[in-house]
This record gives sequence, structure tokens and C-alpha cells, in this order.
Amino acid sequence: MLITHATILTMNASREIITDGAIAIQQDRIIAIDKTPVLQERYPDEEQLDASDKLVIPGLIDTHVHLAQAMIRGCADDMELLQWLCERVWVLQGNYSQEDGYVSARLCIAEMLKSGTTTFLESMLAHRYGFDGIARAVQESGIRACLAGIVMDIGTYATQDNSMHPGMRESRETSLLGVLDMHSKWQGAANGRIHVWFGPRTPGGVTSDLYREMSELARQKNMGITMHLAEVEADKIYLQEKFGLSPVLYAESVGLLGPRSVLVHMVWLNDADIARLAETGTHVSHNPSSNSKLASGVCKVPQLLEQGVNVALGCDGGPSNNDYDMIREMKLAAVIHKAVSINPLTIPAETVLEMATINGARALGLEHEIGSLETGKKADLAILDLHRLHTTPSPNPVSTLVYAATGGEVDTVLVDGKIVVQGGHLMTMDEHEVIAQANKHAYQVYQRAGIDIKPKWPIR
Amino acid sequence: MLITHATILTMNASREIITDGAIAIQQDRIIAIDKTPVLQERYPDEEQLDASDKLVIPGLIDTHVHLAQAMIRGCADDMELLQWLCERVWVLQGNYSQEDGYVSARLCIAEMLKSGTTTFLESMLAHRYGFDGIARAVQESGIRACLAGIVMDIGTYATQDNSMHPGMRESRETSLLGVLDMHSKWQGAANGRIHVWFGPRTPGGVTSDLYREMSELARQKNMGITMHLAEVEADKIYLQEKFGLSPVLYAESVGLLGPRSVLVHMVWLNDADIARLAETGTHVSHNPSSNSKLASGVCKVPQLLEQGVNVALGCDGGPSNNDYDMIREMKLAAVIHKAVSINPLTIPAETVLEMATINGARALGLEHEIGSLETGKKADLAILDLHRLHTTPSPNPVSTLVYAATGGEVDTVLVDGKIVVQGGHLMTMDEHEVIAQANKHAYQVYQRAGIDIKPKWPIR
Ligand SMILES: [Zn+2]
Ligand SMILES: [Zn+2]
Repeated sequence: MLITHATILTMNASREIITDGAIAIQQDRIIAIDKTPVLQERYPDEEQLDASDKLVIPGLIDTHVHLAQAMIRGCADDMELLQWLCERVWVLQGNYSQEDGYVSARLCIAEMLKSGTTTFLESMLAHRYGFDGIARAVQESGIRACLAGIVMDIGTYATQDNSMHPGMRESRETSLLGVLDMHSKWQGAANGRIHVWFGPRTPGGVTSDLYREMSELARQKNMGITMHLAEVEADKIYLQEKFGLSPVLYAESVGLLGPRSVLVHMVWLNDADIARLAETGTHVSHNPSSNSKLASGVCKVPQLLEQGVNVALGCDGGPSNNDYDMIREMKLAAVIHKAVSINPLTIPAETVLEMATINGARALGLEHEIGSLETGKKADLAILDLHRLHTTPSPNPVSTLVYAATGGEVDTVLVDGKIVVQGGHLMTMDEHEVIAQANKHAYQVYQRAGIDIKPKWPIR
Repeated sequence: MLITHATILTMNASREIITDGAIAIQQDRIIAIDKTPVLQERYPDEEQLDASDKLVIPGLIDTHVHLAQAMIRGCADDMELLQWLCERVWVLQGNYSQEDGYVSARLCIAEMLKSGTTTFLESMLAHRYGFDGIARAVQESGIRACLAGIVMDIGTYATQDNSMHPGMRESRETSLLGVLDMHSKWQGAANGRIHVWFGPRTPGGVTSDLYREMSELARQKNMGITMHLAEVEADKIYLQEKFGLSPVLYAESVGLLGPRSVLVHMVWLNDADIARLAETGTHVSHNPSSNSKLASGVCKVPQLLEQGVNVALGCDGGPSNNDYDMIREMKLAAVIHKAVSINPLTIPAETVLEMATINGARALGLEHEIGSLETGKKADLAILDLHRLHTTPSPNPVSTLVYAATGGEVDTVLVDGKIVVQGGHLMTMDEHEVIAQANKHAYQVYQRAGIDIKPKWPIR
């Protein structure tokens, strides 16, 4: 296939932008990228996809997703975090069947694909949601995924006042062995689109011994690890009181730092923490919507970047964002740090786009495969139609993408060389069926959990 | 006309939500609002607009817009404010012809209507953009508007280091008399959809004498006044050094406080300022995207609301947001104050929706006409299609609207009882022609201004 006449944000090493650009794709890979006339001459018989007036970007990489939370979108708005988690999110998720997990995963993946996300990192896949079903949803949908299976052995949660709250339960056995099981079954499946990672719970849900054992296993098998850390101040206080260590130093003490680790949120860090992340090559997933909506605070992204930490972007979950639209997430990432630092030069649009693409690829250890549009890489890309009122005029495509666009402008999406969205329509799933199933299963989960979400205002 | 089977967020005094609701409209007004079966029985012969599975909200009210800036969207991203204003925005706007003003107004209005905004307050309409042409654009498009004509007599701008920069020029005469002229010509035109206000420049561009004269005239003629104030710290410092007064006390000293005044941004306020705003019934237009992107700071909205100040919402302009989508603006308003206060209960979704509807109506002095869906009020409303992946499920329509939706979900819009958007299509303008004209005129303006916006990255 030959995509022609596009403006292409390559995100290659020199960040080249190609106007009237073309991309030649053979099976799952980009075999050439150049000006349109050049590739039209080289591949005269290739089927052409005309992208005139359209913008082609590398498929976006969402480095922090909870698939199971799509179906409980909006279940706990404007609530205290503990109530949010313990009275709503965990209660609802605790009532999931494996089919609910599958249905929610499909809803989440469909939303991501339609808004230009081609790869995601699921951070804490509980076995009760059915790892197999969710891997199947990934396989069927055509998306690329790192699925981090949950690891835990305590099942409590450190609360604001430093007491412990009973959390969700998985045993030590289903944890480590379960994830290894899934790794041997699914790693590299779907033409290499599926990766299996470890997704340990935060300290409070996992003993130091289990973290160490898991980290050692991850190293042996070259598996990635992702974990929420330093999301709220209580996390920091808990680790300080229990271990006398900052979040990052505690993570290091149990083997959690390094280039195969993606630590998520990372709001409550001191300068030494930031330096240690940089030195160890540990990646950070920044989730500005979630951190804002849940009032976790504002992650020190400018300092992290300045110290050389690789920062990627994530949307988090349905009750904490409440969308999975990486383009909207980019805008918030671009503007919130300007407001807080009172410096308009903080985190320009270009930096945010790096976070959502090539930095994400580095975080997942996939920078040689995805994150930019270059010869030899996987054909994972999104084509945006910017012939819209709110993206007119567009003197700078990077600015238009970050500051004006939304996922709603995504027209066509390719993953692994296959068209998964075309003309704004999902090709691998029936969107109406996905919505209908999600509504039906959500209703059942709320019923089983005995939770009835009512608007605060009177209903007639 | 009878809208049927909708979920209706009435925003009436008790904030009632009506499920399976209906709205009966005769000419420009709502004549009844109730459950669908009730109104179907009462109006059996009425033409029905089936809004099953759709959400009906009062038309959104954008209390701070620059029509002329739509056409220079993205002209000055990630720049220092002074450079942003003096080297880009003013240089480009200084090269506008009246036709450019008309073309930009159409682009801006089209974007607003399509994303559910039915009323806006344009804050500083310069005569060079052609007041008549812009009023005509309002008239033709079907939107409702308060057009504040620019008032100034110095033409300078107080800079960060408290020196003065030459600003845009309008004379004292074209200012006051020009606005009065437009008031006598356009006030109440288009079946009352057009209002003419005073839109003075910030202190530095206007003498205290002219403010006083204008305020007196506004009182005599019951005209509204809107002005940017305390947007950046330099504004506060300038007024302190020149007049020994805080922004709000200076505004009061020249007659600018009171229930017909909408002061915009209001980031740099102290407690006494906030108290004085509340006591005088002065309205505040909060513009979180603009304040964030331009790094002005974070407006103390929670404190303003707590002290009883009426706070409305605004998108500001194409170079400062860079969109005119009030639904996206609502989300930022809902989340940014949570992040800054580290309190998830700050500014719940319901409060943000009030800001975008009924509070906006109060700010414009139109609370008896618009801002809620009630019998006797104008039929200004937006119908959203929430049958989308990213708005599924929707256990609480207010939360879905604020935290998950965008202007892209707006399906149908009525202003003054007339359908201006239907099935996502503009009925009063040719969208493709609006886009083509905007691109053409923007190109010419950039050419005349000698400004060439280039992406920061290399182009091939
Ligand atoms: Zn999370
Ligand atoms: Zn403004």
C-alpha cells in the first residue's frame, strides 16, 4: 500500500516533517517514506490511499491504561480518593466476571483505536478479568499491547491517614505464576503485537520480598514492569514511615528501577528521586488528566525532562480521566505545566508529541519497532482529517494537533500494516455492538455491586 | 416544534433533570417542558424531533471570545506573552481588512455553533474589523451575541518590566462614539439576538478619564462592559505602581465594577479584591485554557465562588486556547482547580456546567432569557448524541458531558427557536466555504504582515 499526498510528522531522529509525503507499506512494515512523486515512481502499481490535506502521525502510545475501567467510566466523579477507590472502583471491579473484562476491554480498545492510539500498556490486569479473553480482544481488534498482569500478595491499600484499607484480592500464587503462565502463552502472539509484563500493585499491596522475586524474574525473562508510584502524598508518607525511604529509593531497594520499568504518576518526588530515575534509565508515565481529576497533584514533568528522564504519556482509566483520547491528553500535558510554572515556554507542543509517540516507544522497549515513521519500522500510524472548523487554519501541524485537535479528527488508523479504522469507522469491531454490550454489562455489574449512580440533581 | 424522548438538563432553579423529556417550542420561545407523553398529548399535531438517547442542554454561553483571532489560530504557540502579543497577534490583526474581520467572525461563529455555543460575548471588537460586517455575520449565522466595541485612547501596553509597548491604535473618538453609533444601529437587532457593549482595553491602553466617561455612558444606556483585568502579574504591578491600587480597586475607582461588568481572566487577585467583586455583583469570566497556555497562572475560582462571585466561562481566542469548544473548556475548568488545590471535591462537574450556562446568562444580564431550559425562555439549546464509545456508559449525564464529551458530540443546535445545526451540519453557513475563505484570508494576512509560521522541526 502507498499512502500519498500527506503531511507526515515522522518523529524520526531529526523530527523531519514531510509535505506531500508518501509512505510505502509492505505487510506489517514501512518499506519507504519520502516525497509522493518519488514513491509513486518507485511503486507505480501499488494501491494508493490518498491522504491529501491530511496529517499522518505515528500511532499514539498510551503508556497507562486500565482496560477494565472503561466500562465503569464516570462511576466515581468528584469524590475523595479513598471513597473513589474503595467504595466504587474496587467494589465494581470486584464484581466483574471474565466476560465483563472482555466487554470492557473491547470498549476501551475501540475508543483508543478510533482516537489514534495504536499501542497501549495495561497496567494491572487482574486474573478475574480473564487474561486470555483480554489477550483475545487485543488479537481480534488489531491493536498492539503490553499487558501487565497484576502481582500482589497482601491486598491492602495504604490510606491517607496511613492506616490500611482492605483492597482487592489476588494471591501471591495467582500473581507471579499466573503472569508467567500468560507470558509463556501470549508473549509475541498476534504477529508480535502482544507483550506480557508484570504489573505489581503499589507498596501496601505487595511485600518487599515479592517485589524482589518478581524483579529478578523480569530480568531473567526480559519482561517489562509497570507500577503506580508516588501518585498521592499518602504513598510517600507510607513508605517513609514504614521503610524510611522515598518512593524512588524504596523502588530501587526492591529492584524496581531500570530501563524495563515504567513507573506511573510519580507526582510526589524530590530532587534526589528525579536524579535516581535518570541515572537508572527508569521511565515515567505522566497522566495529567488523572492526576488533575483525582487531585493527586501536578507531576514535575519539566524537571524530569530536564534531568533526562524519559517521560511518556497515559490516559489512565474511565473513572479517573474519563476518556482514553491521547490527543486530548496531549493538550492538557502541554498547558497545565505552563499554568503551574507561569512560564509559557514550558513543555512545548513538540515535546508533548514526543511524549505521546517516541518516548512511549522507548518506555515500552519498542523504540526500534514503533514510535516514529521510518523505513523498517512497523506500519503503526494514524491519519487525521484536519479539514475542520476548529483546526482551520493550520500554520503549524504540530500545534494544530496538540492545541486544537481531538481524537475525533482521526480518519484512518493502521496497526501492523493493517487498516483498523477507515473513514472514522472501526474495521475490526462493530462499534454499535461494542456500545450495546458495554451498556448491558455495565448495568449488570452495577446491579451486582449494589451501586446506583445517581446525578446529584433531582430527576423527574 | 416538539423535541421528544430526550434526557434534559434543564438548569432551572432546582437543576431538575428530565428523563424521557420533551420541549415544546413556538417561534423563538419554549412554551412547555415536561415528560414526553404529557407534551405529546398536549401538542398532538406538532412536528416532532426525536431525541431518543440524546442529551439536551441549554445552549452554552461563551463569555470571552475574540472573533478576529479564529483566523490566526496557532500563530504564536509556546512563546513569551509579550512576543505572542506584540510580534504576532497585534501585527497580524493590524493587517486585517474589514473583509478579514468578517471571514474570521464566520469561522469563529461556525465553530462555536457546531460545538453547542449559542451565545457569546466578543470582548474587544476593533472598528478596523468592521463592526457592521461582524454584526451581519451574527445576524446571518443565527447565533446570539454581545458585541463589545473596543474603547481606548492611549494605544500602549504595560509590559512585564513595567515599561510601555506601543499597542494597537484606535482613537478616543472612534472608540466611544463609534461604540455608541453601533449601539444605536445594532442593539436589539436580529429579533433581539444582538447586543452592543463597551469593550475597553486594559489599563495602559485607556486613561482613567475615558474609563469614567465610558462607565457613565454605560450606566445611562444600560450597556454592558467587559474588560481583561489582572490577567498577568504585570497588570497588577503596573496598577500598584501607577495608581497605588489593586486591579479591582482601580477598576472600582473608574466605575468599572457592578452587575453590568464582566471582568475577564482575573488571575492576580487578593482576598480584598474578591470580596469587593462579590459586594458589587461584578461578574468574572474564567478562561482556563487561555490562562494555562499563556502561563498567566491559575484563577482562584474556588475562592471566587465561595465568596459569592458569579463566575462564567470563556474560551478566549485562536492563539490562546486554540479552540472555541466550551465542552472541552468545561473539562479543563473542572480538573485544573482540583490539581492545584489537591482536593478532588473542588469545582464539581455540576458547578462547571452552571458556569457554562446559567452563570454565563447572569453575566450577560440575560438570565431571564437564556441559560436554562424553562417555559418562557428563548429556545436556545444543544442536543448531544452520546451514543459514542468515549461517552459509554453514561451513568450520570452531567459527568459524561463535562468529563468525557467534546463539542464533537453536538448533533443539533437551536438558537432563538431556529435550527442552526442539524445532524452535525451547519444549516446557516456552508462549512466548506467558511474553511476555504478562512484559509485564503489567513494566507493573505500572514503575507501582508510579513509573518511566516514555520514548524520548529525541519521540513522536507
Ligand atoms: Zn492507573
Ligand atoms: Zn482575551
